[in-house]
Order: sequence, then structure tokens, then C-alpha cells
Amino acid sequence: MKNSLSSGKETNLLFLQAYDYIVTRMDRGEWKAHDKLPSIRLLAQELQVHRLTVFRAYQLLKQNERAYVKEKSGYFVSPCKPEEHVLPEHADAESTRLFTSSSALKNSLSEIQQIPVEYQFSQALIDPNLLPNLFLSEHVKKVFDIYPKLMGTYSSAQGDEELREYLCRYMVRHHNIQLTVNDLLITTGGQQAIDLISRIYIRPLDSILVERPTYSAALDIFRQKGARFIPVEITPDGYDLANVERLMEKHKPRLFYMNPTFHNPTGYTVPAAQRKQLVELAERYRCLLIEDDAIHEMYLDQPPPQPMLTYDTEGWVVYLRSFSKYIAPGLRICAVMGGPSIIKSLITAKSLADNGTPLVNQKMFLHYFESPRMQQHLEKLRIALQIRKEIVEEELASTGWHWVSPQGGFNLWLQLPDFIPVDQLLEDCLRESVSFVPGEICDPLKEMRSWIRLSYSFVNEEHLRDGVRRLIKIAGRYEAQ
Amino acid sequence: MKNSLSSGKETNLLFLQAYDYIVTRMDRGEWKAHDKLPSIRLLAQELQVHRLTVFRAYQLLKQNERAYVKEKSGYFVSPCKPEEHVLPEHADAESTRLFTSSSALKNSLSEIQQIPVEYQFSQALIDPNLLPNLFLSEHVKKVFDIYPKLMGTYSSAQGDEELREYLCRYMVRHHNIQLTVNDLLITTGGQQAIDLISRIYIRPLDSILVERPTYSAALDIFRQKGARFIPVEITPDGYDLANVERLMEKHKPRLFYMNPTFHNPTGYTVPAAQRKQLVELAERYRCLLIEDDAIHEMYLDQPPPQPMLTYDTEGWVVYLRSFSKYIAPGLRICAVMGGPSIIKSLITAKSLADNGTPLVNQKMFLHYFESPRMQQHLEKLRIALQIRKEIVEEELASTGWHWVSPQGGFNLWLQLPDFIPVDQLLEDCLRESVSFVPGEICDPLKEMRSWIRLSYSFVNEEHLRDGVRRLIKIAGRYEAQ
Repeated sequence: MKNSLSSGKETNLLFLQAYDYIVTRMDRGEWKAHDKLPSIRLLAQELQVHRLTVFRAYQLLKQNERAYVKEKSGYFVSPCKPEEHVLPEHADAESTRLFTSSSALKNSLSEIQQIPVEYQFSQALIDPNLLPNLFLSEHVKKVFDIYPKLMGTYSSAQGDEELREYLCRYMVRHHNIQLTVNDLLITTGGQQAIDLISRIYIRPLDSILVERPTYSAALDIFRQKGARFIPVEITPDGYDLANVERLMEKHKPRLFYMNPTFHNPTGYTVPAAQRKQLVELAERYRCLLIEDDAIHEMYLDQPPPQPMLTYDTEGWVVYLRSFSKYIAPGLRICAVMGGPSIIKSLITAKSLADNGTPLVNQKMFLHYFESPRMQQHLEKLRIALQIRKEIVEEELASTGWHWVSPQGGFNLWLQLPDFIPVDQLLEDCLRESVSFVPGEICDPLKEMRSWIRLSYSFVNEEHLRDGVRRLIKIAGRYEAQ
Repeated sequence: MKNSLSSGKETNLLFLQAYDYIVTRMDRGEWKAHDKLPSIRLLAQELQVHRLTVFRAYQLLKQNERAYVKEKSGYFVSPCKPEEHVLPEHADAESTRLFTSSSALKNSLSEIQQIPVEYQFSQALIDPNLLPNLFLSEHVKKVFDIYPKLMGTYSSAQGDEELREYLCRYMVRHHNIQLTVNDLLITTGGQQAIDLISRIYIRPLDSILVERPTYSAALDIFRQKGARFIPVEITPDGYDLANVERLMEKHKPRLFYMNPTFHNPTGYTVPAAQRKQLVELAERYRCLLIEDDAIHEMYLDQPPPQPMLTYDTEGWVVYLRSFSKYIAPGLRICAVMGGPSIIKSLITAKSLADNGTPLVNQKMFLHYFESPRMQQHLEKLRIALQIRKEIVEEELASTGWHWVSPQGGFNLWLQLPDFIPVDQLLEDCLRESVSFVPGEICDPLKEMRSWIRLSYSFVNEEHLRDGVRRLIKIAGRYEAQ
């Protein structure tokens, strides 16, 4: 069964977690030099993983000289010479720990995006040329006249009250959701919100539900916290709720990280009917729903269903609403909304993390977001994205590749024929100045090898057409073989 | 011996850490329902704490029904009903965990600072009126003309390259320190830098050296990571290096968090001679020196000694240089400088934490910092601070309170007579619209009860005089009794 914890990929991930877990206990001195390590059977039981997983962890310990073997009597902790604690190695160890425990980081989104290419299809970002830059700049300058001492003033850890008040009014007006300023926290982008939530709610080896595929940077954050992934397949029709319930019942996950609206990378949207039921499941199985809603207004024909938060009465939904993503991405403004005790914990975490998002960014965002020009801008964006999507689909029509045309968002999620090796395709494309995101890094099981995410939001029409043609041409070489 | 781990206060802190540690292992299922917990003697050994510490942790477990006692046979894990995992409780548990493990947070800096008072002496911040606000705003507006697409552009996780290049040139010019753009990371304020370092280098129950007293928010971050504090007294002459060496040898601390230049809260500065020796100690004992340098240019008569980083050849110093604090605090720009492997790990942590400080803030800072007007501004600031310090010292002269006149910075560190109960004084002052920071929250041992931090940087001359007089008057009531 693909989703089961004993699947090859999942084990792959678990054995590194088990390794980290053992090393941590050694570093803490819980397991001292020459102590006998638990038997493979016992540790496998304790960690609830396959024995092979523990075996592989022990092999790696041996290889890194953290453990040694005595014939017939098992594994023992190696004596740590102080040299092994020297900082550079330690630092490397740490970074490799992050890297190895996430091969996604070795070939990560940000790494791919940082490679300068002519045809940038790996950026799920608005083309800066589509933003009303001149107006935006002029408008933003006013902010310094309104708040002459802005540059000298700190925000509270929770975020600017004027902005939170405005967002409360916004949520009532647009989603008929009643909030108070205390139910909101402002973060520096949605990613910080995901990180703060992980700090509070994820402990090593906690089981969490994640969509398959999903946002790869979120997977990296959860991996770093040592979470165990229970994948939930997402389809154009949403989730298999019976399966979700089974997984919640079986694994008692602490949370379900989801992106139900113009889902990244697939563009799928979970239908309204399922949203209500999901909130009920969350209540029944006491599983927190982390609803990541980064591009709610980037629909094509009609607005998406209301957020899950709308159906939440018991405080099981934490709603991450990124507002700046299609308005002024440079400002990095996200609002986290949820029950009082959750927001309270998150404020504590935020105050320790950076003591508050800079006030300048919050005021700039507020005053632009309030401006009537915003609505025009959004309509213009939707049309531009519609056109770009059509161009890509036009060009791809002949390829026989599979995708489901999304109702909104920035991406196409394409399934290529099996005979095209996506890893190699990416290399060839990067060499020829085309970039995209390989599906594998969006997959908690790292299996979706014949899929790619193609973002049509970042490059202009003409470039888009040329770039897609180039991509198809490069892929064609494999067919030819 | 005050500094030893077995001191009352330190135990106080440790027993909560031990409690968290045990609960975490229960939550992870390492210690299951009805398992026998380790004997007090064994766990005390394992954690290297006093048996009383473990005893108190076990008492708290019993009280919270996480453990039960069998006559003559010890402590056992209580069965957890699922209800005990319900989210609201969990969330509260989390926040209380943070709160209890840091009574400083219950009465924290930010809480005191958020109370609106007429005489704000708890803010170690530049008076916004001292900033060249009009010039700053006008200047900053230019940035949007230079980078018309700034609002639509992301920064790399490491930070804007143009800014890092500039800071490299700056470090050569001012400190004769040779760096490459790869040796720098830009963070959102110094606090984020401290937090990222803690994520990478501190694991629960790690011993770290911290000054006594020190920056209370840093203590909160370290506490959250479960660090054990080994206090190092700081005096007007710096540290007792023999003692520092003894502590490094005895406790093998992972790091020493220090603020050697215009130290917060005392204003003391560690002399140049000691700086060189400290770096040698760091190398010998493989202890990372975290040099927090937030207000380097806020000296009064003469510039401070060069940073420790100047003496570092082996990569044992991580230098946190907050540049925006006295230039444009609202921008929250800090630069972390250190060895390649350290910076590499920190970039990974930063990319997971928020994927990069907003570019807008970095560009605004860069262009203002470059402007010739900056130097004038700094000189003006120094004079203003000099005057404010003199006013406070003038007013305090008659009190018989003790302090060492600082050579720079924003604060006076005052020792009040024993018969003045600082806690109560703070309450009375807040009621009469005067605020200050009680020394206790700056003390890793939470003992310095007769000290207060009085910041003279935030309020203007006239207000300063009135406020200090009011403070003295309120304190006088105790003498009268």
C-alpha cells in the first residue's frame, strides 16, 4: 500500500529520522560512550518503525563511527573524542543533517529558482511587470508622510493593530467570518507561519497528514522538525474522505497541512461540500487543519469556495492567508487566523523568533491594499493569468502530456510519458535556459517522478510560448530515442 | 557558590527543564502508560542534575497526573486519555510550557514596554524624534525609483547581494576585517539571528555561557530551547577570565552568548586585551562566541575596542551586527558574520524560517546607510545621548544609588538600596506612568533584585528630567517608611 509507513520511500525518510533521534540522545549524554544500544527489535518497537529502518540507522552510525559492533552482543556507543564536537564539523553535521534528512534540499525549489535562466517556469510568482509598479511606488511613498516616524517605530510581536482591524473587517465582508484583532497574527510571509506552527505543534516522530503532492518548502520545514508524513492524495475532486478518516483514526495525526484552494502544485480546489466534512473530521479526531490559502483571489472564471475556516466553530482550523503574494510580494505579509489559545501560543513563538514583522512592511501593505486601485489590479491579473494559461495549454495540446486545467493559480501540473526521465530533462532544460519544478520534490514519498510543475505566472506571453516550445523540443529528444 | 548549577535559582529553572524532558519522552511514546520511570538517582545521573531537581519534576508530574506512585516501587507513567491531547489544552500546555519555563515572559520586557506610560524608561531604543525622519522618508522614496519592481521581488534567503557587498567593504574600512559576501547573512533584527543560532547549536539541556546580567529576550530564546545557563559575571573591567576558563573546562559549553560592547543592560565594555584572550579560550575549549554588537557606534567620547571577530582566525566567533538599531530601527536589519560552515547552516535555517528578509527593507537600509548624511546623524545622536545621560546622572546624584557611568549605549544600570523592593517599585511607577526594567529579568539566576535598567535614549530632555524626579520621589516613599 503506497501510503503505508512501510513503503520504501517512507522508510527511506524514517531511517534518517531514527538516525537523528539516536545521535541526539548520544549528544545529550543519555546514551554514553560504550553503552549498549537497544536491540534493533526493541528500538523498532519503541519508534514504531520497521526493523530494517533501525538496521539502516545503525549501519549509518557505524559508518560515521558513532557506534561500534561487538560480535554477537550488538551495537555500542563509540567514545566521542572532543574533536568530534569541534564546531566546523558540528556545523557541517547540522547542515548535512538538514540536507540528508531532506534530499529535496539538495535539489530544492530555492536552488532551482536561483539558477538564472531565460525561461523561468519554476517561479510560482506574479511577473513583476504585471504589478502596478509606478502606482505602487508612488502610493507607498505616501505612507511615510502619513507616519513620519515610521522608520523609527517597532511593531508589536502580534502585528500592527490598524492592519489587524482592517483584516477583520475584510474577513467579514468577503467571507462572513467574524474575528477580533486578537484572533490574528501577522507573519513575514506564509512560510514563517508554517514554521511557527511547526515549532509549537510538531515534535520529533509526530505523525502529520500532508497532501500528496504538496508545497515542497513546507515538507522541508516539517522534516526539519522530525515529523512523519502520512500522505493524503489530492485529486481534481478533492480528497478521499473515507481514507482521510481512516488515516486520522489510525495515526492520530497532530495536524493536517493542506492547501485546498488552487492547490500548489496541482491547481486543484477542494469542493465546498468536502470542506464542511473535513472540519467535522478534524473535530472528531482532534486533528488541527492548517489551511494554507496563498492565492485565494487568483481565480480565473469564478471565485473559489469559502475557506475551511468558515465552517470551523471549535477552533480546529488555523487559516494562513497570504495577502501580499499577488499584491506586493516584496512586502511578505501573511495573516494567521485561529482560536485564541493557538494564536496566543503563536504570538509567543513569533516574539521569540523575530519580535514582530517590520512595521514599515505592514503599513505599506495596508495602505495599498485599501486603495480602490487594488480591485482593478486583481481583475487585470486574472485576465493576464487566463491568457498565459491558455498559451501554455495551446502549446502543450500536441504533446499528449496529461494535466487537468486549473480554475485558478499559477501552475500546470503535468504528467509526462514514462520514457521521459524528468531528472535528466531538468538538467538538459537548465542547460538550455529553461527551468521547471520536478514533481518528485513536491511528493512526501519522493515518488512522483513523471510529473513536473510548470508555472505560467512569471514570464510574459511571448517568452512563455517560446519557452514551452523549447521545453517540448528538449523532451522530444527522448521520444526520438 | 552563586554561579554553580546547584544554586537555588538555577535548580528552579532546571526542574522545569527536567519536567519538559520527561513529558516529551512520554508524548513521543518512548515512556508508555504504566512504564516504570527511572529512579530519581538514575535520572539525576543521566541529566547531570541534583536529585532534588528530579524529585521536584516527579512531584509536578504527579500533580499534573502524568505519573503515579506505587508504594515502595517508584513512579509510573499515567495512561493518557485522548482528551489530554485535545488541542486547546495542548496549545495552552505549549504556551504555559514557554511561560513557566521562563517566568521572565510572565513579566517580560515586551510586556512592560507595551504598557503605555508617559515616562518610558524601559525602551532601549532611540527616540524617534532624534531620527532625521523627513530626510529619511524622502531618501527612502528614491529607492522605489532606483528599483521600480522592488515591491514584486524576493530576496534570497542569505540576503541582498548588493547589501552584503557593501557591508564587506564597510567591515574592511571600519574594522579591517576581510570578508566575502558568503561570510554574511542578513536577518530581520538581531533577535532573529539569536534564534537561528539557537536552532542550530542548542539542544535540550546543553550548557551555555551567558553574561550575568544580560539581554533578557536572549535568555527567553535559550530557555525555550532548553539550554542550561552557566552565568559569567560582567563588570566594568570585563570578565574574570580565569573563571571563564574554569567554566569552559568544567561544563564544555557549546557557546558563550556575549554583548561585550556597551553591554545591555550594564553599559560596560570588555577591554581589548580580554577580547584577544577570549578568542584564544574559545579556540582551546571549542566554545562558540556569539558576539552580539547592536549599538557599536553609540559611543560617547571615544569609539569602543574592535569586535572579537577581529581576533578570530579559526571561525569560533559569530558576529551579530545590528546596523539598523540607531539608523532606522523600523527596518530591522542585522548582519551575521562568521565561518563558512556556520553561515551555511544558518542560511539553511533562515530559508526554512522565513525564506529571506524582505528585499524592500534591505534596499531602503542600504541606500540610507550609504548616504553622507548618516555620519552627521550619528554625531548628532552621540551628542543627544551624552546630554540625556548627564541629565539622568545629575538627577540621580543625590539619591545615593550606585551605578558605573557607561562610555556608550542607551542605559544606566542602577543598584538601589536593599530596602527598596524593586518589584513593588515597578508596580507603583507603572501606576504613576513611569516604566523601567527590573534587573531580575536580566539575570539568568533571577536574583538581581535590587537592580534596575533605566534607558535614557527614548524620551526627550525635559521629560527625562521630570520622569527621573518622579521615579526618585516614588522610591523615596520606601526610604521614608
